[in-house]
Amino acid sequence: MSPSDKPTPLSGFPELLPAQRNAELAVIDHLRRSFELHGFASVETRIVEPLDRLAKGGEIDKEIYVLRRLQADDEASDSGLALHFDLTVPFARYVLENSGKLEFPFRRYQIQKAWRGERPQEGRFREFTQADVDIVAKDELSLHYDVEVARVMAEALAGLPLPPMSLQTNSRRLIEGFYRGLGATDPQRVIAIMDKLDKVPAEAIAGRLVAEAGLDDAQARQCLRLAQIRTPDTTFVDHVRSLGVQHELLEQGLDELSAVIDGCAGVHSDRFRVEANLRIARGLDYYTGTVFEIYMEGYESLGSVGGGGRYEALASDGTTTYPGVGISFGISRSLVPLLQRGVLTGSRPVPSAVLVALADADSRPASDAVAQQLRSHGIATEVAPSPQKYGRQIRYAERRGIPFVWFPASDGTADQVKDIRSGDQVDADPESWQPPAADLHPRVVRAESKEKQP
Amino acid sequence: MSPSDKPTPLSGFPELLPAQRNAELAVIDHLRRSFELHGFASVETRIVEPLDRLAKGGEIDKEIYVLRRLQADDEASDSGLALHFDLTVPFARYVLENSGKLEFPFRRYQIQKAWRGERPQEGRFREFTQADVDIVAKDELSLHYDVEVARVMAEALAGLPLPPMSLQTNSRRLIEGFYRGLGATDPQRVIAIMDKLDKVPAEAIAGRLVAEAGLDDAQARQCLRLAQIRTPDTTFVDHVRSLGVQHELLEQGLDELSAVIDGCAGVHSDRFRVEANLRIARGLDYYTGTVFEIYMEGYESLGSVGGGGRYEALASDGTTTYPGVGISFGISRSLVPLLQRGVLTGSRPVPSAVLVALADADSRPASDAVAQQLRSHGIATEVAPSPQKYGRQIRYAERRGIPFVWFPASDGTADQVKDIRSGDQVDADPESWQPPAADLHPRVVRAESKEKQP
Repeated sequence: MSPSDKPTPLSGFPELLPAQRNAELAVIDHLRRSFELHGFASVETRIVEPLDRLAKGGEIDKEIYVLRRLQADDEASDSGLALHFDLTVPFARYVLENSGKLEFPFRRYQIQKAWRGERPQEGRFREFTQADVDIVAKDELSLHYDVEVARVMAEALAGLPLPPMSLQTNSRRLIEGFYRGLGATDPQRVIAIMDKLDKVPAEAIAGRLVAEAGLDDAQARQCLRLAQIRTPDTTFVDHVRSLGVQHELLEQGLDELSAVIDGCAGVHSDRFRVEANLRIARGLDYYTGTVFEIYMEGYESLGSVGGGGRYEALASDGTTTYPGVGISFGISRSLVPLLQRGVLTGSRPVPSAVLVALADADSRPASDAVAQQLRSHGIATEVAPSPQKYGRQIRYAERRGIPFVWFPASDGTADQVKDIRSGDQVDADPESWQPPAADLHPRVVRAESKEKQP
Repeated sequence: MSPSDKPTPLSGFPELLPAQRNAELAVIDHLRRSFELHGFASVETRIVEPLDRLAKGGEIDKEIYVLRRLQADDEASDSGLALHFDLTVPFARYVLENSGKLEFPFRRYQIQKAWRGERPQEGRFREFTQADVDIVAKDELSLHYDVEVARVMAEALAGLPLPPMSLQTNSRRLIEGFYRGLGATDPQRVIAIMDKLDKVPAEAIAGRLVAEAGLDDAQARQCLRLAQIRTPDTTFVDHVRSLGVQHELLEQGLDELSAVIDGCAGVHSDRFRVEANLRIARGLDYYTGTVFEIYMEGYESLGSVGGGGRYEALASDGTTTYPGVGISFGISRSLVPLLQRGVLTGSRPVPSAVLVALADADSRPASDAVAQQLRSHGIATEVAPSPQKYGRQIRYAERRGIPFVWFPASDGTADQVKDIRSGDQVDADPESWQPPAADLHPRVVRAESKEKQP
């Protein structure tokens, strides 16, 4: 192989260096732990779905990767299989396929990769990891599941070592009811136009509401006023009422959104907010009630880093309908730009908290024995590669970010352990010594200072 | 969607029910933990490699899945990318691509899926999960890394809740030296023929050694005698010496294999054996020293469930050569047949250890509060879906395998917790109660008895 064969990265397929991967693992572990504490079961689906199951929608078609067997005959080379582009389509299929073997309501989390052939840009990858939580039931799904799914995701995100985030919530019933109460005859059209409010100036939106949705100017203004309402508590109800619009569906939406906001009241902190944001619509037709978007503060340019909502028919087999409510969080979407920009990283590229030094070649069994003792107490440990001078062994640990170097006992001296950051070196017993909890596993840290994220 | 649209499984792409998935997660978590305790860093590579990097070998070509963009122009539809078929090729590419940013010797583990288009059969899937450990260095890699990689995999496998396994070890230098010492002029040809000993009768092998490798009958017998040597300790050395063959390379191989066997001496148990097995050859050319195969007792029909060895050139960029030693364990290969045959499963389909009962609709906040208290102590907890009679709530827990039902305090009574298996119900404080350690997380159990694996 010639030097010019040195491989180069593939655009849109981000790979992490070991320290960055440790940061990603810390994020994934925290999310998984949070979901499991709330009783959500892990599901992993195969990466492929039959093409006809993926290609039902419209625009998504051109972003699908199809599988072909390399050496098959030309005629038969297409496998009819394609990589999934989200975790919702495979989950809906899994529920239908296994409906007789699952207990409903079924809570599942799924942390897995998905693939889209779209043009890569910051936060948008061709290969990316998502974390989804959904609750699915047979025939009917109570409102308290909307609250539950919001709260489990809010608690999970609130504990992440990432920039502050917010879960923005709205109710499709609330806005549809408001538009109907206003007198709109095609509320879905109004929703579709209002959904562009992030990209199109308010004046232009008002113009389109008049020209395309048959509203008069006063009605269009009311729609824009509704979209400006954003509160961290249920005071949005008063703001909506002050607009003077009445409709049964609006009342139902106000109640539902209030329940979600009240249910998440305990999660608020300076690191995480749950808000009623009446501008949120999520364009997709299949959302029917509560809708969610997740934003990361200071990184609004990435767009939302997650979202979801309630769909009355997550899946259906013609006899039974399975309504669901869920939220998807983009792990790659939020984390990889922070790693690539050098904002965050892992505190070290190895799991090891301790390097056991090697006095000479013959003492490898003794150093191995100390390492085994430390491991038996849950401390990740490696042994120095060769019996170099201790200064060089310490530099070996330093280059890997291993915080402690262990010197096994020799004639007359006890075992000693050195914190190579402070230089402190003390006697220690491998049967009982523990590192500070913060040093036990790699953590997510600010890349510059190597300090822990606040 | 009509009832006939009910999806069916895809052959070769196994998916697990939630209880089975919990068993798989327990296996993966244990392996990961074992690897990390030994200082192995996690690497995850993208699922695709450029086709020309995968297609260099011979036979493997026809098993590759190539990616095509569905809506791209016919000319440009092939992406030039294909799914990796193992974790070694991507790791070698990752090492070359990031060589300036990695610290060597570099210990990595990788637990990830791979894909092959081959015909599915028991234990052989088109999509499967592997767990690989490798140590790679620049220019030179000491023998003690062969010992280390054997020991970390042995310790990891010894702790798995699977049938007993063995790590069978040999040295390519030992057998090549033996064949050279015998007078074989083409020892690689002898190795290739001897590698078929599992599939071809010994008499036929002897015939081929004479006809194809130029040995005489006595030399061929010596080869077969060598292949019969199999010891759990270093007594294989005496058995080899008793055959009276001498060669410098043979001596080196005996020393190397002894070091590996001695280094793993502490791992032996009735659940796991490390053996010198002089029949093991591993056909692949790139192994140069120690070689490994993993077998699962009682499931020899699956073939080996893992393997590996030392390769002097895992990767090379023309200037620097990166030797490596590693072992790959087939998680799907070993576990999925046990799950599919109904031998093993997870102890429950949910993470939840506790179901908090609901006295009436108004008491949901009180039950939620108890659930939060339990979760804050690390106990996975869910709340009953609706205020049915307690008998029905207990049956809800029973169907999910949730071992404990919690009854929140009401006027005058304390909180109580019921073990629904024994029926025992006692007063309990949600601030301090803990379930038995064995009930905290789902475990791998025998499917029939739902008893813990020995």
